[in-house]
Amino acid sequence: MKIAVLPGDGIGQEVTQEAVRVLEALDLPGLSLEWADVGATAYRAHGHPLPPATLELARGADAILFGAVGDFDCDHLERHLRPEQAILGLRSELTLFANLRPATLFDGLEGMSALRPEIARQIDLVIVRELNGDVYFGDKAIETLPDGERRGWDMMSYTESEVRRIAHVAFRAARGRKERLCSVDKANVLETSQLWRDVVIEVAKEYPDVTLDHMYVDNAAMQLVKNPGQFDVVVTGNLFGDILSDQASMCVGSIGLLASAALGERQTEYGTFGLYEPIHGSAPDIAGQDKANPMATILSAAMLLRHSLGLVDQADCIEAAVSGALADGVLGLDLGGEAGTREIGDAVISRL
Amino acid sequence: MKIAVLPGDGIGQEVTQEAVRVLEALDLPGLSLEWADVGATAYRAHGHPLPPATLELARGADAILFGAVGDFDCDHLERHLRPEQAILGLRSELTLFANLRPATLFDGLEGMSALRPEIARQIDLVIVRELNGDVYFGDKAIETLPDGERRGWDMMSYTESEVRRIAHVAFRAARGRKERLCSVDKANVLETSQLWRDVVIEVAKEYPDVTLDHMYVDNAAMQLVKNPGQFDVVVTGNLFGDILSDQASMCVGSIGLLASAALGERQTEYGTFGLYEPIHGSAPDIAGQDKANPMATILSAAMLLRHSLGLVDQADCIEAAVSGALADGVLGLDLGGEAGTREIGDAVISRL
Ligand SMILES: CC(C)[C@H](C(=O)O)[C@@H](O)C(=O)O
Ligand SMILES: CC(C)[C@H](C(=O)O)[C@@H](O)C(=O)O
Repeated sequence: MKIAVLPGDGIGQEVTQEAVRVLEALDLPGLSLEWADVGATAYRAHGHPLPPATLELARGADAILFGAVGDFDCDHLERHLRPEQAILGLRSELTLFANLRPATLFDGLEGMSALRPEIARQIDLVIVRELNGDVYFGDKAIETLPDGERRGWDMMSYTESEVRRIAHVAFRAARGRKERLCSVDKANVLETSQLWRDVVIEVAKEYPDVTLDHMYVDNAAMQLVKNPGQFDVVVTGNLFGDILSDQASMCVGSIGLLASAALGERQTEYGTFGLYEPIHGSAPDIAGQDKANPMATILSAAMLLRHSLGLVDQADCIEAAVSGALADGVLGLDLGGEAGTREIGDAVISRL
Repeated sequence: MKIAVLPGDGIGQEVTQEAVRVLEALDLPGLSLEWADVGATAYRAHGHPLPPATLELARGADAILFGAVGDFDCDHLERHLRPEQAILGLRSELTLFANLRPATLFDGLEGMSALRPEIARQIDLVIVRELNGDVYFGDKAIETLPDGERRGWDMMSYTESEVRRIAHVAFRAARGRKERLCSVDKANVLETSQLWRDVVIEVAKEYPDVTLDHMYVDNAAMQLVKNPGQFDVVVTGNLFGDILSDQASMCVGSIGLLASAALGERQTEYGTFGLYEPIHGSAPDIAGQDKANPMATILSAAMLLRHSLGLVDQADCIEAAVSGALADGVLGLDLGGEAGTREIGDAVISRL
């Protein structure tokens, strides 16, 4: 079993290190970890945010553990050299189209959510975000018009088959949960969304047991604050999924707790090939200071064991250790506590 | 002074009626109201959601009071005949590019926000949303590819001059408030956003007194829940503004309280020509049942008096009456109270 470990930039380094310590503490026979540079770190060392060697290592692994990328010093670079291109490149080159972003409130953290406790307590949802299409990967440019004015443009689009494959993932996820799926779009304005909605309705015929709703994205952003308990599985496009899943993190208490999986269709010997990352970014302002909460990355490692390596018990074990640490008051700075990165890693390891 | 009154569909009818009663109760000399159909109502009566007569009436007025449009029965119509095209058509035909969406917590409503009271209490922001560009108005289609697959697409774009004019509105708004402006984009992925950011930075040179920040939209959606008190004026494009302003409404307690103004550059004899509408929709499920909260529309009428007719005292008077009614516990169903549409209208009128 081979895991490619790509810590990336900023706090990506230190949170990944703690997740790796947790994996090592489990003493999994036959597990090998191989490290590579990615993001601004890779750009500085090798001139590209996703060097060919990193991509090949990732492609050859059974799963990828990813930290975070991003660095303000790279904002002036041409777009294809910026750190974000590393994660976008991995998602598209490896056809990791299905992003699962669960949001559940941990016991005892009601008081940490920005939402009122009685609302926060209801949250138990998964956002299924499409990762290979939408305005993220269409043609784009800044051009100069004949009159000398500049114009920036990006093509938003989805094809039928792109929508169909993510819809199947979402319906199957709903089957494994409360059998409710809410598809989020902006079909009252966008043709991309109209096609999305039409295809989701077609796919629904194969899942008569799942209740399907549709919601406009503006309303969904509102409902996610007003009454997040109404959602079970939410399926949406790349851009809307980016916004809604970050928003959901605050309902849960902190972005430092949210893990994610990016899955494709390829099966490995042990499960589904995938990339696992915390949904937070590289937070350059607190990097290298032992201030970041590694729990989101540790929970991402648990998802990795479950989905890509078929190690369900071990995944449960990590998740229980994180819950236990939180319940015992091991809170990072993001949760108003004082526990440092390393200390949180130790607390999880001691509870495995 | 001529106001075009366009109530539209669903609860648009009843909430507009209350706002008109409030305006009439002020007994403004020389004020004339002229009504016209819009949305699904107009489609049924005249075969088009924005009939030429409605558009001409709106164009010839000093201001427009708009209710809401939308009707599920029209979802099957060709896009150009759907109710939403009425509001999109008015915004673009009349070059109403600057949407001001204030979000402030009314005294005593801390407990109504989905957010914890100590967080909700901090909210006092205005979202300045661009209304004439972005993926809303680019070319769009659903096409069939050579291999028989369907593809939906929408062109997202902004030109320099479109960004510049909305940036000026936002910087001026910040000057009139706490001199802080946050520009929201997704420049790490979109070229449209990169141009947006570059132009906002250029315009900032003319406003050295205003502190400018930039935030990615995913982070903004999170921060708006986590700590909305950090924002003063937020400027963003049409799509992101749609999402963030609906989201902000829940931080304030109810979408039934949020008013908005859509302004252009044209000056009338009394102020700036504009369209005023609640940010909520037509809510067909509760239409005609005296259940809708008309406060957002009444507050929109107050904005109309202030911005388009120069009647600042009268605008203050309406806003004080709404605050007073809320403080006295006149709460609509949206706020967990029992006051009906008409009753809320009466309560505001009696406090003018
Ligand atoms: C870093 C950025 C390109 C990325 C995205 O927008 O997808 C991030 O926000 C995420 O959600 O993983
Ligand atoms: C009705 C719809 C087209 C509209 C929009 O998306 O702009 C509405 O959501 C709004 O915010 O005014």
